[in-house]
Amino acid sequence: MPREPTSTDRHSRLTIDLGERSYDIWIGDGLLDAAVAWQGLPQSARALVVTNDVVGPLHARALLDRVAPLHGSVDCLELPDGEVHKNWQTLNLIFDRLLEKACDRKTVLYALGGGVVGDMTGFAAACYMRGVPFVQVPTTLLAQVDSSVGGKTAINHPLGKNMIGAFFQPVRVVCDLGLLRTLPQRELSAGLAEVIKYGPIADLTFMDWLEPRITELRGLDASALAYAIRRCCEIKAGVVAADEREGGLRAILNFGHTFGHAIEAGMGYGTWLHGEAVGCGLVMAAELSSRLGRVSAAFVGRLRSMVLAAGLPTVAPRMPASRWLELMRHDKKAEAGSIRFVLVDDRGRADVQPVADDIVCDVIAQCTEPSRDAGFGPST
Amino acid sequence: MPREPTSTDRHSRLTIDLGERSYDIWIGDGLLDAAVAWQGLPQSARALVVTNDVVGPLHARALLDRVAPLHGSVDCLELPDGEVHKNWQTLNLIFDRLLEKACDRKTVLYALGGGVVGDMTGFAAACYMRGVPFVQVPTTLLAQVDSSVGGKTAINHPLGKNMIGAFFQPVRVVCDLGLLRTLPQRELSAGLAEVIKYGPIADLTFMDWLEPRITELRGLDASALAYAIRRCCEIKAGVVAADEREGGLRAILNFGHTFGHAIEAGMGYGTWLHGEAVGCGLVMAAELSSRLGRVSAAFVGRLRSMVLAAGLPTVAPRMPASRWLELMRHDKKAEAGSIRFVLVDDRGRADVQPVADDIVCDVIAQCTEPSRDAGFGPST
Repeated sequence: MPREPTSTDRHSRLTIDLGERSYDIWIGDGLLDAAVAWQGLPQSARALVVTNDVVGPLHARALLDRVAPLHGSVDCLELPDGEVHKNWQTLNLIFDRLLEKACDRKTVLYALGGGVVGDMTGFAAACYMRGVPFVQVPTTLLAQVDSSVGGKTAINHPLGKNMIGAFFQPVRVVCDLGLLRTLPQRELSAGLAEVIKYGPIADLTFMDWLEPRITELRGLDASALAYAIRRCCEIKAGVVAADEREGGLRAILNFGHTFGHAIEAGMGYGTWLHGEAVGCGLVMAAELSSRLGRVSAAFVGRLRSMVLAAGLPTVAPRMPASRWLELMRHDKKAEAGSIRFVLVDDRGRADVQPVADDIVCDVIAQCTEPSRDAGFGPST
Repeated sequence: MPREPTSTDRHSRLTIDLGERSYDIWIGDGLLDAAVAWQGLPQSARALVVTNDVVGPLHARALLDRVAPLHGSVDCLELPDGEVHKNWQTLNLIFDRLLEKACDRKTVLYALGGGVVGDMTGFAAACYMRGVPFVQVPTTLLAQVDSSVGGKTAINHPLGKNMIGAFFQPVRVVCDLGLLRTLPQRELSAGLAEVIKYGPIADLTFMDWLEPRITELRGLDASALAYAIRRCCEIKAGVVAADEREGGLRAILNFGHTFGHAIEAGMGYGTWLHGEAVGCGLVMAAELSSRLGRVSAAFVGRLRSMVLAAGLPTVAPRMPASRWLELMRHDKKAEAGSIRFVLVDDRGRADVQPVADDIVCDVIAQCTEPSRDAGFGPST
């Protein structure tokens, strides 16, 4: 008689090795109900689950029940949903609650939500009493592949995205694929942008695997999802381990993000989802790489098709070229005027290089208009 | 013919050894004009001197001139002076300026001011683009002895002091004793509270040295000041090296601070200077140590005399005992209800222990009223 699958058959664990700040990522379907994913977490008198008003009503109860045995009392705070709320005012709601409840420096924070909740809860944990432990429970595909590794936390400033933040590692990440069943299709697509990103910058074999499976992933196939998430986390972990504080190599993870951030900021945060802006940014950055002779037009076409298959935009919004440049100069990778871009090559390698404004403007013009003739910007 | 004293004769350097985050503290008279103290600092296209509207007009010009050769452009931001401004709104002025000037992640921040400017500039540096280098140029005695070592940065929250912050090390600290000549006498006294603190917790020989020299220090004797600041920094560095992130030992540096923070918060930040509250807190914490049989009444008397000689209050403000307890429970050292205090013994050693509320209330009553009979609180 075949034995029942154990939780460890259905669930995989990936250890992120950062010395004394090492932690485990659990990936699997139904982890919110699986004791194994929650073993060994810090116990404390108080804990706070931070979520948003969309995810909270769906999943907070299950998480509260799961972690209740670890803490004397567990409180729950629902933030307003959306990137537009990723600011100091909303962050302060977390501090207010922690202090109202007299939470001490052993208090554990749980981030139950997407990237916004994760970034804000992580930053709150980094700053509250100069650091308390936090657990990531990402509920979007984007957050599962992108926020699980790297320890980046931040809030936005009116003049720039993620401008105020900290590098701060969680004590655990629990990626329950079941949580993705309540995710709107548009958000699932947005998450695929970060998944697609990993092929060109680090692993063309993964790109080959992914190319025919995008529809499967959009259909929430658990096995394909688990593999994709794990592989993305592994690749990212390798990059981050080599460069925890973003001195150099780590910047390659921002492939597509310089253009993407400009789209997000230019259109107003929240108009385009982060993943949508990155999806379009991937195509633009590939095009830029092609202009510089690093990849073939066929490679760009392949990437564009994957972005399209993911249900993401591949045509950039209309903004004056000067506005694009201004927005990209505010990007954190920029240094004193020169705009630096992550460029890829045909061997699945990436690096960061400054690119002359006129070439950048050409790419913007090309990616904004399907027809070159109707475009604005400098002619080529 | 005697040679001219070189800068290294008059200036001393103390290296704080924290691995890759090691940095130097320069201590001496006239360092703002001494090239040696500014050698080896990071160069960058942009830099920002953060100061306040009292110190800025006195010393910002000299600092701007000194560091100009290191940077393409150096901007200056004057914050409103005072502990009441150590909040998010003021912190955000720094972020606003950095982003308005398109400052990148290599931008160097200089903190020119007392503890408030240092804490806010350091926290801004910790958070801006997740971390940019900063240089401390403390202009108060308190900041020179206390903020030079330890990497603590923070802002206040309406419900608690220093509740939001980060551990973040400067790349250099320059303690120019000459800057103390423009310091009001009240602030100089406040700084002496932290100087006095180091004897009881770590070095009774230093307490013996200090006891007859408090008047000299108040008279700004450069040689005595240099020795006192250096010795305080050395002691603190030893403690911090053993416990950078305040896991245990480091808490002894908060001798007097649990009571002191309650006074500051209870009276409203800025009513009592931090050092005044700590001065009174030292006497209260010594009294508590005496109640628990750790030091003699004579020791408490000696410490009280030193605090008095420094021109600091030794009698606590009137607040209901319940208010004291409530405020102290919000202190970061508190864990889930029990209030923990730094206690000292007769051998110059300190540790942190929970103390029963009734004993704490006795000490509060005794230290609030010169006559025990007229006091409020539980009788003994």
